[in-house]
Amino acid sequence: MGVVIPLEEGKNKQASVKPLVDLTKADMERVNQLILSKAGSDVQMIPEVANHLISSGGKRLRPMLTLAAASMFGYGGDHHVKLATSVEFMHTATLLHDDVVDESDLRRGKSTARMIWGNQASVLVGDFLLGQAFKMMVEVGSLEALDVLSTAATVIAEGEVLQLSVAKNMETTEDDYLEVIRAKTAALFAAAAEVGPIIANTGKAERNALKSYGMNLGLAFQLVDDALDYGGKAADLGKNTGDDFREGKITLPVILAWRRGTAEDRAFWREAIEGGKSDDANLERAFGLITRYGGLTDTIARAQHYGMIARDALAPLPASPWKDALLEVIDFSIARVS
Amino acid sequence: MGVVIPLEEGKNKQASVKPLVDLTKADMERVNQLILSKAGSDVQMIPEVANHLISSGGKRLRPMLTLAAASMFGYGGDHHVKLATSVEFMHTATLLHDDVVDESDLRRGKSTARMIWGNQASVLVGDFLLGQAFKMMVEVGSLEALDVLSTAATVIAEGEVLQLSVAKNMETTEDDYLEVIRAKTAALFAAAAEVGPIIANTGKAERNALKSYGMNLGLAFQLVDDALDYGGKAADLGKNTGDDFREGKITLPVILAWRRGTAEDRAFWREAIEGGKSDDANLERAFGLITRYGGLTDTIARAQHYGMIARDALAPLPASPWKDALLEVIDFSIARVS
Repeated sequence: MGVVIPLEEGKNKQASVKPLVDLTKADMERVNQLILSKAGSDVQMIPEVANHLISSGGKRLRPMLTLAAASMFGYGGDHHVKLATSVEFMHTATLLHDDVVDESDLRRGKSTARMIWGNQASVLVGDFLLGQAFKMMVEVGSLEALDVLSTAATVIAEGEVLQLSVAKNMETTEDDYLEVIRAKTAALFAAAAEVGPIIANTGKAERNALKSYGMNLGLAFQLVDDALDYGGKAADLGKNTGDDFREGKITLPVILAWRRGTAEDRAFWREAIEGGKSDDANLERAFGLITRYGGLTDTIARAQHYGMIARDALAPLPASPWKDALLEVIDFSIARVS
Repeated sequence: MGVVIPLEEGKNKQASVKPLVDLTKADMERVNQLILSKAGSDVQMIPEVANHLISSGGKRLRPMLTLAAASMFGYGGDHHVKLATSVEFMHTATLLHDDVVDESDLRRGKSTARMIWGNQASVLVGDFLLGQAFKMMVEVGSLEALDVLSTAATVIAEGEVLQLSVAKNMETTEDDYLEVIRAKTAALFAAAAEVGPIIANTGKAERNALKSYGMNLGLAFQLVDDALDYGGKAADLGKNTGDDFREGKITLPVILAWRRGTAEDRAFWREAIEGGKSDDANLERAFGLITRYGGLTDTIARAQHYGMIARDALAPLPASPWKDALLEVIDFSIARVS
């Protein structure tokens, strides 16, 4: 008998978004075409600003979710391409408005649109893209899909306002934080996934499965993003490590470090986050405290928790390459941080 | 025989919005209820910001147009109340975003939301109201109405961006200016009026009549607004006279004065508008030049031109108190300036 080497599943294998990318490749080319055509306008500044952001290299995870969530149920029309494009436009509009709200200089390593064209253009081009998103949804003509996506638009805005109102407040609880990321990030993931089965005319169970998958994947995704802000390298992440700290954003790594820390630690956090003393020395100290109190490890543990819920949401669905690809995206989203 | 005193029609009579207000009174109460309930949110800042703007005393002309345009065709349901509220929310969202874009301090004589809660809240609460507007439209369930209103949302944003790109450019032509006000103002008036016959299930002719009425009323309305900025008193208008001048906005009174002026006048305008020298002395000089070259008189003449088109658009429709009220609104919109 030889030696048994335990294979720790999910550690040796490198989870990847590639299966999803491959499966949706042909449709994503149509999405990209539609993005370019619908971001067009005779008003020159609109395509300039829109293309700046669109070409800046996001993964386009959300539209791929919509495409996969329709195709996995055998959908054969072209409405999923329009809805996927709508979802990406809603996301892009949110980014444009976010950069104004957060006063961000960089996004994915490039200057933000507001730094090049001003806050004004960012606000208005965001509004234009949102309008185009709704027009495409109306073309699709599904009132159920319209309901899901317009509700998501409201919830996202509500989440952003909620985030403002908890900003720089060290008393923010993990529940407050979860409410924010559920609204500002997970709601669009959920809607992106739910409209797939809607246009594929499945039953209610499939809709709910994809909605739950999207919601929990979105939570995991945002938790990992927030961990990366204190752990990754700027080049990997395409944003500046420490951005959240400098902007006084309260994310889970900070909430955990604050709650688990000493009175002295808390005084530091108040001064840094509420008092705005966010220089590099303080950022170093923040990294140290977060590490000491397990802020990153446990943020990832929370992400894994939601990842498991997303996985179980899809469990009753029949095996297919689509399902496998969506499941692998969960692991990929979480593995980004390791 | 006594002396014949010629009655110049439309001069002795004081045109008023009152007949429209009276006819839509019961429905507008329902609109106002719906506004309050849909501007509500557990996120406290949202109703605060929304109510600040909503309670600041606008005429609510746009939702009254929607109500009248449905009721005049015998519409008896309640979808017009939801669509009227959607229209007002779209307008309110635009105002919130406009104040950020224009960096305005005052609107209708009150501090703008951005001065009290910051640009961030203005952007995001605008997004929230836009989302709520779309949700209400989806509840109504008319894809035609959704098409008209979502197209208007895109056109409005496009018009605002266009306005940015012609801002502070003295070479702007009257045609450029018309394109801007058609998109940023008239398109929503047109959509507000067109969705009335749509939900009343009229023929295409009635839809087109109301759309044309709304579009041309909107043009007249904005032309008069732009004249008032150089002619009215701040209290009448609820905004500061000279705001457009200080913001370097190119409106028709300025375009006319520039095109009709001497080389010396043009040098003044360049310095004032493009160079930002918009102190009170220069504002006085601008008033003087606009008056000398008939900038206000002829801006009103243009408004009367569009008012006549709006009137003729409704001409084939049968006589009714609704029609009379809508026609009187044209005269009212123009008479504001006299």
